[in-house]
Amino acid sequence: MSEPACAAVPLQWVGPIRITGNVLDDTVEVPLATYESPVWPSVGRGARISRAVAHGVVATLVDDRMTRSILLEADDAYTAHTAVQRLSAEFPHLREIVTASSHYADLIGFHHQITGNLLFLRFEFTTGDASGHNMATLAAERLIDDILLRYPGLRYGSISGNYCTDKKASAVNAILGRGKNLVAELVVPQPLVHERLHTTAARIVELNIRKNLIGTLLAGGIRSANAHYANMLLGFYLATGQDAANIIEGSQGITHTEDRDGDLYFSCTLPNLIVGTIGNGKQLPFVTENLTRLGCREHRPPGDNARRLAAIAAATVLCGELSLLAAQTNPGELMRAHTRYERPATHNGTKP
Amino acid sequence: MSEPACAAVPLQWVGPIRITGNVLDDTVEVPLATYESPVWPSVGRGARISRAVAHGVVATLVDDRMTRSILLEADDAYTAHTAVQRLSAEFPHLREIVTASSHYADLIGFHHQITGNLLFLRFEFTTGDASGHNMATLAAERLIDDILLRYPGLRYGSISGNYCTDKKASAVNAILGRGKNLVAELVVPQPLVHERLHTTAARIVELNIRKNLIGTLLAGGIRSANAHYANMLLGFYLATGQDAANIIEGSQGITHTEDRDGDLYFSCTLPNLIVGTIGNGKQLPFVTENLTRLGCREHRPPGDNARRLAAIAAATVLCGELSLLAAQTNPGELMRAHTRYERPATHNGTKP
Amino acid sequence: MSEPACAAVPLQWVGPIRITGNVLDDTVEVPLATYESPVWPSVGRGARISRAVAHGVVATLVDDRMTRSILLEADDAYTAHTAVQRLSAEFPHLREIVTASSHYADLIGFHHQITGNLLFLRFEFTTGDASGHNMATLAAERLIDDILLRYPGLRYGSISGNYCTDKKASAVNAILGRGKNLVAELVVPQPLVHERLHTTAARIVELNIRKNLIGTLLAGGIRSANAHYANMLLGFYLATGQDAANIIEGSQGITHTEDRDGDLYFSCTLPNLIVGTIGNGKQLPFVTENLTRLGCREHRPPGDNARRLAAIAAATVLCGELSLLAAQTNPGELMRAHTRYERPATHNGTKP
Amino acid sequence: MSEPACAAVPLQWVGPIRITGNVLDDTVEVPLATYESPVWPSVGRGARISRAVAHGVVATLVDDRMTRSILLEADDAYTAHTAVQRLSAEFPHLREIVTASSHYADLIGFHHQITGNLLFLRFEFTTGDASGHNMATLAAERLIDDILLRYPGLRYGSISGNYCTDKKASAVNAILGRGKNLVAELVVPQPLVHERLHTTAARIVELNIRKNLIGTLLAGGIRSANAHYANMLLGFYLATGQDAANIIEGSQGITHTEDRDGDLYFSCTLPNLIVGTIGNGKQLPFVTENLTRLGCREHRPPGDNARRLAAIAAATVLCGELSLLAAQTNPGELMRAHTRYERPATHNGTKP
Repeated sequence: MSEPACAAVPLQWVGPIRITGNVLDDTVEVPLATYESPVWPSVGRGARISRAVAHGVVATLVDDRMTRSILLEADDAYTAHTAVQRLSAEFPHLREIVTASSHYADLIGFHHQITGNLLFLRFEFTTGDASGHNMATLAAERLIDDILLRYPGLRYGSISGNYCTDKKASAVNAILGRGKNLVAELVVPQPLVHERLHTTAARIVELNIRKNLIGTLLAGGIRSANAHYANMLLGFYLATGQDAANIIEGSQGITHTEDRDGDLYFSCTLPNLIVGTIGNGKQLPFVTENLTRLGCREHRPPGDNARRLAAIAAATVLCGELSLLAAQTNPGELMRAHTRYERPATHNGTKP
Repeated sequence: MSEPACAAVPLQWVGPIRITGNVLDDTVEVPLATYESPVWPSVGRGARISRAVAHGVVATLVDDRMTRSILLEADDAYTAHTAVQRLSAEFPHLREIVTASSHYADLIGFHHQITGNLLFLRFEFTTGDASGHNMATLAAERLIDDILLRYPGLRYGSISGNYCTDKKASAVNAILGRGKNLVAELVVPQPLVHERLHTTAARIVELNIRKNLIGTLLAGGIRSANAHYANMLLGFYLATGQDAANIIEGSQGITHTEDRDGDLYFSCTLPNLIVGTIGNGKQLPFVTENLTRLGCREHRPPGDNARRLAAIAAATVLCGELSLLAAQTNPGELMRAHTRYERPATHNGTKP
Repeated sequence: MSEPACAAVPLQWVGPIRITGNVLDDTVEVPLATYESPVWPSVGRGARISRAVAHGVVATLVDDRMTRSILLEADDAYTAHTAVQRLSAEFPHLREIVTASSHYADLIGFHHQITGNLLFLRFEFTTGDASGHNMATLAAERLIDDILLRYPGLRYGSISGNYCTDKKASAVNAILGRGKNLVAELVVPQPLVHERLHTTAARIVELNIRKNLIGTLLAGGIRSANAHYANMLLGFYLATGQDAANIIEGSQGITHTEDRDGDLYFSCTLPNLIVGTIGNGKQLPFVTENLTRLGCREHRPPGDNARRLAAIAAATVLCGELSLLAAQTNPGELMRAHTRYERPATHNGTKP
Repeated sequence: MSEPACAAVPLQWVGPIRITGNVLDDTVEVPLATYESPVWPSVGRGARISRAVAHGVVATLVDDRMTRSILLEADDAYTAHTAVQRLSAEFPHLREIVTASSHYADLIGFHHQITGNLLFLRFEFTTGDASGHNMATLAAERLIDDILLRYPGLRYGSISGNYCTDKKASAVNAILGRGKNLVAELVVPQPLVHERLHTTAARIVELNIRKNLIGTLLAGGIRSANAHYANMLLGFYLATGQDAANIIEGSQGITHTEDRDGDLYFSCTLPNLIVGTIGNGKQLPFVTENLTRLGCREHRPPGDNARRLAAIAAATVLCGELSLLAAQTNPGELMRAHTRYERPATHNGTKP
């Protein structure tokens, strides 16, 4: 293994974005670190619109939990089934084990799946301001130790059974919840749709149906109906010290739009934002600085800084998604934007 | 918008990994930039095993193409259907349009989907050493212009119809191909499985079935049966200037293992590696340096540098996947590894 | 509309199957109505094995509920979010509404999804011995009336929002539960595997991994890893008056097998069996007769007859699945079976 | 095994439906056998609308093929890869083998997937007027025999590798094609939408977006965005001797609608209709009679009768889908319809 070094990913602060809702009421610049430079002006255009509208982007936090699924081998399905029933009755005991494992982790529920003689237990935690991967793993380990000691019909299968599921595209996370579940909404008056986005609400709605909903269904997409959430999430996650591999479930969100008599209702629902303001990566000086500038290192009740960060992430995603969808309603606009914001096209092999 | 800056993502060179196959025969150190530091020793362990085995990791390139799906509105399904038939007959003409758009892009095929009056055309290109997003977009734009001019029953829908599909989890990419399709294989003799991985082939095979195959199916996962490809891909993509949002489809791969009389056959199939050695991000000095050190900036036929990079990425994924699966066969090992390689657990809220 | 008539689907009684578990302990012949005649000997072979084994097929009922998701339009996501919180607190009131709608329906829980300003409420009921489609619809209608009256920020969207989800392939049903969730297990001693199935446990396990798990994942399958559950379910549903369109979710199950020192552990997990012994179709004389012969029209507590029927269905599926998988381990056996049990192949265009 | 008998599934002839397009131009009554009696008036209402509109339901056949995927074990991925390349070059030879196996089967292409050392070959056939399951199996068997003889690095895995995929919900069938791919379209003038469907185009479009597109995506649905295709397909398949287990892939279709200045554009795309007019089940007297009455037993070029049947099936699905969606736009209408068309609700446990 070689000397420590770094990948210096270009970063720009974009915005500010006007954000309101049940988490914050503020106007914040956001940092985006990416090699995909057109993301900056794209989010910037959305941010300008957010500032021109009464409440800006309204970000509503709907849920917040972290999960880890353990995998146990049972003697048979009946043993697994009766174990689940008994574990449900023992919930207060399981919760104590989790509470004893960490100052911040709390067990708030669990789901299960029985397949043949296999038992998957998906534990749900709150983890304060940490994204919670490690807290969840440690708590799950303590739970396994306790369960195996007391249930002779069960044996260790895996500390993670992929029913969690971490950094894999699936349906379970959005259905049962994993990470912070946020809805970002923006209503753009008809004149702004025309002047700033050079399109109409009707055309954006139509494009969203055909591309994000139908196109994604045709592709065999799974709970994922958007144009490019991943671009904004990657930039935001890298700039704020998040584990950016979590953009995989983070990007599984749905854009829903409405034409309200010419005004545009535009929403991005992101049910799996896994972010934290403490933990791995957050101790790096530039990350600390960026989180501080975002107002996410204040003295607040545990979890509030992380929820603020998630709400800002969701608003950022909305800004970029709105801008790209608007661009794609107009033939030729996307390519022109890329040509303008990236290095000269001739370097890219393009013939004039 | 603020001054340019950067996110300094910690990077380590890991390995070297012994890699053979139909793309390269070499022993290469690999750079991984990530906040998830346990990835380094994890890949390192796999790399050591690769060097202890005759052919190392055998990486087989199976396919290579880039795609863009355009979306057209037709008068009706019949108009769409007859247009597709005519376009198929006109393939040489379409190919000329693409060739004229860039020095490197070539049209090698197209698929389609008709849904009601909507026509999705998914064009497939080779794009030399570039990952090819922009080349594909530009070529698609030229194709749209040509088609709309000649087909009065068709109208512009979108330059991208999400049937491409870029940076979204789906089934289409692996079925029809998008990016470089690689299979990485390693056969670990029984003594090495025991000494280096502290487990047995039978236990890894069993875990792979239960966690990666069944666990993922239970989660409603889509063409994604692995433990953590995303972690290695993120680190590799950031270190080599790739658009890391492409880890979303990149991580949709399948780990397949066999117990061969105590020896372990371990394979990772990655059908959607979207990487390039030129294009956006590659001009940054540290990226150029890293690509050069990886031997991916040599004078070779167009595409060969990028295919070498993809093969190295696949081998890197295998090293980390093998190591984590082995660890998860042993109760407690995963948490101990995280505790050792990350900052002191007390900072994380862990109670002793 | 024309005169009443019927489609006379060929029916055979197969077995008997030896079935034990937490629902029944019996040996029962099962009726299968199908045009796919090879299903009869296929299930028959599995049934013979069930009778040669100590406990036969062990069928474990793991869950039982019926669902209906309504779709409401909210002013915005925050209105939807606060409505959900209030509805959770009002659960006893909602339950009363359901209880008042039917002698058998009971509300046992609800889940929700918020997407933009859309609110999906997925109500979960027990419905006695009926499969419960109509009971759930009626209860949902009463719930809508009540909710809309008391929540001015919510408006009618649909009596069914496809998040139920009825007769569509999805992930939600098996994750949250819909219908009866059953696991059928059978341990076949090594000599029986050899004599009756002409194969080995190892070869069946290997085939199950490659075909049912990996093959299905490659196909972009969703929570569906089996060879042909649909065939047995169709036959059983038609013979017992079920709405056979429910084989769509019913067939989304997972076959899991183990090689236990040469003995074969074989399991079929069917989380979405939607069956009833009363309701639509059950009043037909032949259906009544078949249900009676199956012992599913006894005087039992509400729901017990339907659960018995579900357990028999699951055991039937196991018998047919086991037989086909065994056949496919041997080259040529499948075609020979079809040729034997269907009309002469020459009628089918086959050349000698 | 007991004496032959039958399940007498109630059947009604509904319509007639006016159908035009590239397959037929006719007005045909359709038989539906089902226990779900409300399907009859539902399809009937759609049929009446089809007759009141200029071209009726326009059914466009877009594709027609049957598939079978074999599974082979290779020495390693490279062996699999080179085998695929050689097999592609040998296509004429493979085609000869298929042609020699049957008077009707023809090989028109193949796709493949390589996962580790596993090779899935998905062969595509035309099969005349048969749905083609057995023809495809027989041809695949002959292909296996030929391939294994000539490729020493390949071994038998399975005659079916679930990448076909038969009677399982997946993405592959609609992406690569399996069965007959049909689009049914209907434009309903505004006055008819009002008088016959008691709703507006705008409300149906809105419901389709929210329920069929978004609701299905939320449910983790896979290429399946409709209200109840399965109901119509089940009835039609049973009445015409089809293997009704194929409604599983058959029902994976997409409803797409547009509000055209008050007129309603309504389309159902069914990419996986697996139907035949000869083969298993078709020799039953009532089936022969029904197929004859549908005009699907005429002297026509091979395949034309089956394509006619598929087009009628698609039109039937559209009629029922239109009717149900219209009903669900109006609170209370669905339950009233069920109450009217099924047996008295009191039998069902409903309280007044």
